[in-house]
Amino acid sequence: MTDAPYHGHFVGPEHRFALRVYFEDTDFSGVVYHANYLRYFERARSDMLRVAGIDQAAAHANGTGVYAVAAMDLKFRSPAHFDDALLIRSHVTDVRAASCHIAQGVYRDDVLLCEAMVTAAFLSPSGRPTRQPKDWLAIYKALMPGADPKGRPVT
Amino acid sequence: MTDAPYHGHFVGPEHRFALRVYFEDTDFSGVVYHANYLRYFERARSDMLRVAGIDQAAAHANGTGVYAVAAMDLKFRSPAHFDDALLIRSHVTDVRAASCHIAQGVYRDDVLLCEAMVTAAFLSPSGRPTRQPKDWLAIYKALMPGADPKGRPVT
Amino acid sequence: MTDAPYHGHFVGPEHRFALRVYFEDTDFSGVVYHANYLRYFERARSDMLRVAGIDQAAAHANGTGVYAVAAMDLKFRSPAHFDDALLIRSHVTDVRAASCHIAQGVYRDDVLLCEAMVTAAFLSPSGRPTRQPKDWLAIYKALMPGADPKGRPVT
Amino acid sequence: MTDAPYHGHFVGPEHRFALRVYFEDTDFSGVVYHANYLRYFERARSDMLRVAGIDQAAAHANGTGVYAVAAMDLKFRSPAHFDDALLIRSHVTDVRAASCHIAQGVYRDDVLLCEAMVTAAFLSPSGRPTRQPKDWLAIYKALMPGADPKGRPVT
Repeated sequence: MTDAPYHGHFVGPEHRFALRVYFEDTDFSGVVYHANYLRYFERARSDMLRVAGIDQAAAHANGTGVYAVAAMDLKFRSPAHFDDALLIRSHVTDVRAASCHIAQGVYRDDVLLCEAMVTAAFLSPSGRPTRQPKDWLAIYKALMPGADPKGRPVT
Repeated sequence: MTDAPYHGHFVGPEHRFALRVYFEDTDFSGVVYHANYLRYFERARSDMLRVAGIDQAAAHANGTGVYAVAAMDLKFRSPAHFDDALLIRSHVTDVRAASCHIAQGVYRDDVLLCEAMVTAAFLSPSGRPTRQPKDWLAIYKALMPGADPKGRPVT
Repeated sequence: MTDAPYHGHFVGPEHRFALRVYFEDTDFSGVVYHANYLRYFERARSDMLRVAGIDQAAAHANGTGVYAVAAMDLKFRSPAHFDDALLIRSHVTDVRAASCHIAQGVYRDDVLLCEAMVTAAFLSPSGRPTRQPKDWLAIYKALMPGADPKGRPVT
Repeated sequence: MTDAPYHGHFVGPEHRFALRVYFEDTDFSGVVYHANYLRYFERARSDMLRVAGIDQAAAHANGTGVYAVAAMDLKFRSPAHFDDALLIRSHVTDVRAASCHIAQGVYRDDVLLCEAMVTAAFLSPSGRPTRQPKDWLAIYKALMPGADPKGRPVT
């Protein structure tokens, strides 16, 4: 058994990322603190990109740029609790020269608990919007649900 | 000099809450991590309610209910950095029987860095939407910008 | 492929838990923020107990009790960076009627980055130290390195 | 009324920093999550240095260096709850060429809830221990309880 970190996997164009709710994620009202869903979403996005072949760490280290969340539309539908097994499902909905758009949902079994529409802007080291690398654009386009009729999410 | 925690103050219907960016708030890209703005917003909302006379801790302790964020629309316009002095400006935009709506912005000097439209639902101990206490509704209505022509925010 | 959350595994008496460093874990100095190692340690402890057969969520839900960290001795030896693959190695060092003691280390490859000696107290719902369930004591004793000569950590 | 962030104040050599417990600080067991005390301690240390005249942000920006926590010894004595008004009391216990040692406690009224002995190392931009600026050493020495018989903490 290897000790490599978990990073989820794709089912068609959809990335799936399972996680457990720990003490740190909850608040005294007994459920997951709303801001912590954003941490879940970001872990899932980072690993979706990793699995797809986009190396964010290298892009930051070599001065190409870094992603920053530019907008987020969130709906909190139902609470998650300590020890719940959750699944983050993410897919690319659009890609532009300097941004990408990702839809994400947190599920427990088949129940949608929280959903997000995320706009991530790619920024140069000085913080200005800048074009994503060309090979990343190709990766995003291949990940979009319409890209491959056989690549539809299995639900 | 007293040692009471800071809780901001109202200027007309607008609550103002100053805070400093600490190590914990930033990430390796050099700026405030996007999810941490939600922690800022929640601190400011909690203290807005406190200053207005709404006691969330008592309502939870006596079984009346607790707020949960139901929806949030976020725009991240410009980054904040370590050691920045920020100001969270919040005002009530609407109140319903079982929810309230609050607009919030994070400012550095007079520059808007991040803004949020927040819907908070009031939940019973079993987690169902429930009516807010009547005296709270009266407080929210008095806080809405249109409530008092003399109460407009000073900008 | 299943979508069950990752929970690490035992090698002899040592629990191993791999994780990735995400944006949320770092600060503007470029490395993992010191307090976030405590979140890593707690995830690993929770999953060590889970894998060993101790159900913390049930114990809380049925009013038996809940763990609280009572003491922690931390050494931060070397920094971890964004995107690092880390391994948390944990083992029980002692167990008393109302507490357990766990040694934990964060490793990148074979380099120890951070280590912790943790005392966790078991508390009744009213917050008083209380005896851990008897079957948990038996589990802890079986997990202690001296318990089984064949159970020594593979390093 | 100004909108400058709160930063606490000195009483003799002791820095006092009041704060409120918010939703984000608690976990489902109903009390402050243990790792979040480290965030409180770090805010208090940062503001202790700020008030004393040590500018960490400038030292980082101009390449002088940055502090990293090297060791921490923590005792969690009693829990804090949502909405509690807490006071962080901090004082310098020792200073060396490349490190400083700070004792910190979290109090509710006069009850000690959590205490920490902290060793902070000063690191060059490449991450190596490096000497703190000379004028900082002078500031630390002036802050040590033995430095001024009239400067003892008022308790």
